[in-house]
Amino acid sequence: MKINKSRIEKDFNNISKFGELSNGGVTRLAFSKEDMDARNYLKDVMEELGLRVSIDAFGNMSGRREGKMDIAPVAIGSHLDTVPEGGNYDGIVGVIAALEVIRVLNENNIETLRPIEVVNLSAEESSRFGGATLGSKVISGKISLKDLSKYVDKEGTSLYKALEDNGYKPDEIEGAVLNKGDVYSFIEMHIEQGPVLETESIPVGIVTSIAAPTRFRVKFKGVADHSGNTPMNIRKDALTAASELILGVERIAKYEAGPATVGTVGYVYVKPGAMNVIPGAVEMGIDVRDINSDDKKVAVGKVIQLIEAIKSNRPVEVEYEILTDDEPVKLSSKVIDTLVDTAEEIGLDYKVMHSGAGHDAMHMADIAQAGMIFVPSKNGISHNIEEFTDMDDIVKGTELLLHASLKLAQEGD
Amino acid sequence: MKINKSRIEKDFNNISKFGELSNGGVTRLAFSKEDMDARNYLKDVMEELGLRVSIDAFGNMSGRREGKMDIAPVAIGSHLDTVPEGGNYDGIVGVIAALEVIRVLNENNIETLRPIEVVNLSAEESSRFGGATLGSKVISGKISLKDLSKYVDKEGTSLYKALEDNGYKPDEIEGAVLNKGDVYSFIEMHIEQGPVLETESIPVGIVTSIAAPTRFRVKFKGVADHSGNTPMNIRKDALTAASELILGVERIAKYEAGPATVGTVGYVYVKPGAMNVIPGAVEMGIDVRDINSDDKKVAVGKVIQLIEAIKSNRPVEVEYEILTDDEPVKLSSKVIDTLVDTAEEIGLDYKVMHSGAGHDAMHMADIAQAGMIFVPSKNGISHNIEEFTDMDDIVKGTELLLHASLKLAQEGD
Repeated sequence: MKINKSRIEKDFNNISKFGELSNGGVTRLAFSKEDMDARNYLKDVMEELGLRVSIDAFGNMSGRREGKMDIAPVAIGSHLDTVPEGGNYDGIVGVIAALEVIRVLNENNIETLRPIEVVNLSAEESSRFGGATLGSKVISGKISLKDLSKYVDKEGTSLYKALEDNGYKPDEIEGAVLNKGDVYSFIEMHIEQGPVLETESIPVGIVTSIAAPTRFRVKFKGVADHSGNTPMNIRKDALTAASELILGVERIAKYEAGPATVGTVGYVYVKPGAMNVIPGAVEMGIDVRDINSDDKKVAVGKVIQLIEAIKSNRPVEVEYEILTDDEPVKLSSKVIDTLVDTAEEIGLDYKVMHSGAGHDAMHMADIAQAGMIFVPSKNGISHNIEEFTDMDDIVKGTELLLHASLKLAQEGD
Repeated sequence: MKINKSRIEKDFNNISKFGELSNGGVTRLAFSKEDMDARNYLKDVMEELGLRVSIDAFGNMSGRREGKMDIAPVAIGSHLDTVPEGGNYDGIVGVIAALEVIRVLNENNIETLRPIEVVNLSAEESSRFGGATLGSKVISGKISLKDLSKYVDKEGTSLYKALEDNGYKPDEIEGAVLNKGDVYSFIEMHIEQGPVLETESIPVGIVTSIAAPTRFRVKFKGVADHSGNTPMNIRKDALTAASELILGVERIAKYEAGPATVGTVGYVYVKPGAMNVIPGAVEMGIDVRDINSDDKKVAVGKVIQLIEAIKSNRPVEVEYEILTDDEPVKLSSKVIDTLVDTAEEIGLDYKVMHSGAGHDAMHMADIAQAGMIFVPSKNGISHNIEEFTDMDDIVKGTELLLHASLKLAQEGD
């Protein structure tokens, strides 16, 4: 059984056209026209490969290759949506690797005991609606019908509306929830999005735990006033208040929480946003992550303390909302062992490591034995047009995915 | 001679319709359709009042009421353009007060020695083209034909193109330049845009000097990277670097320069601008003002020092450009004395004060004896839909404008 690099490249090149930018990057926001085009492409490929496609009320896609028995399947895959001006690897490689696994099984006429399903999970990136890994959250029962109206994009379109507009059935979202054991195992192959594998020249990582984000939306309200005629001591400047928080998040993550804590303010909207007007309103997003739950709680607590301090010390109103507060997740030791054994058997150099980024695997872990394979990211860069993974490393990761999935798919209950 | 409040209100209400927003504010950017509509309205009113209208190559309008002698006129007026989502008072009240002055002179059949001209100066607000008081800069010879292509709006339309599209003659812009003495005196009545007059319950301010802005555009370049998988110590975050400068500008203006120094960061653009991506690029505008030239130089020097310090201390690139660097202006003591004497004579309570905001009067001071009258701003708010001045205060300001203009217009050479 041999992985065919050119087939993977073909899918890669085809998918990269959906939302392609002139600078080489891609913008394929969840449920956008570009995302829908990519989904349709995937559906066509799945059908060509003989997979039975089903799409749940939230748009989560699976293409099923039947097994000898109608028991819980082995699921493999990731997501096709991207951040704005992102790269072509984050998410995508997990989906195209899964398609290649099916091709290899098909051409070798391999029958498995369990069904194998290729999955594309919806809205993994938080860029559009402010919440991440939404598809796997729906599957694991963490998002209710009511929540769908609370997630709203910049243009004011709710997640509910976006689903409806694309022909999905938000009202039936509870039907998309799976129970523990409905899926036997889930393996997500993904780019590392960090520098470790590249630095150590190791082609694959086997992930043991996943850091989880706590995300805030914070709104500052001051008074938009003339920049020339308003003395410094009577200003109500929403942006200087916001800047204190931006620097505070950096300081807390760097020095005041745990060794693996990271904290980021990724977006800031300033209104009215003119050279000669004091900012009257600012909105920002904060993303705090850790693999250690206690360290993350410390960081989150200090961010909240700082918000309260800014509220008392500056003449502005500050409101915050916690959008996401996920627990760091330990992945299945069964799957980790399978991946390690398989890597040893096929003679692949690997590193056992953790993930600083959140992934759908952390929610899939609620309903299945979940694991992850990492492939190296050039310079550790991701969420950026310079995101890059060598196709040879993708091939090695796919090889590990193939053999480990096959092993799991031959296991009985 | 009596000011007629309802006539002023009529002009106010008519002009407020051009660019009216549903929230009560107004957007009437320089040379926009809305601005052109307001200009046409003004032209009609000027002609109804028997004024001879002339419009220069830059669109600056004047309506002339002849005097007994054909000598340098007394000019009164301000501007009709607004910031986006601005109010109905900034600029407008100076123009409608000037129209009312003409009406009162007309109905009382008063002949003046000098002509009196009502003026509407083009593009006073910097919102569209990034430079302020452009009309009076043209008149005082500070803008060349070549400069007209450098001012470009968000949509990429140059000032040259905007002039041409509206039927003005940008190529003949040098013909719009006036010499010292071509205008005898200029009085601009304007809202204070600060809280002083309201706080002290004084209906008019007589302005002695005008603070001038130094404006920077600053660009930070870091690396847009994944917010979860990039440890704090290897990040190149453009936004945390920018936040240091935002807080620094506030600190410098508040504590490290002169008592009247103000400093503002009014807009910030963050790219890519997503919850889970470290900001890779930030652009911001800085506006520093003072009535004391030396204090402003201190502040500007410290801002530049801070930019250099951030560049050395943080792993980001920082570039800045100084867009505007105007000198604070002392207004004509002759006009100030005339205003003070007139206020005493008509029994009007007044305050001698300075202006923190820039105005056309600072450039008109190059070619005429220039003065300004302020009327109170509710809560000091301006450049905002909540901008408000009591019509009774506008009437009082107009009364002072009438009597002071009349006095100047009766003076020989």
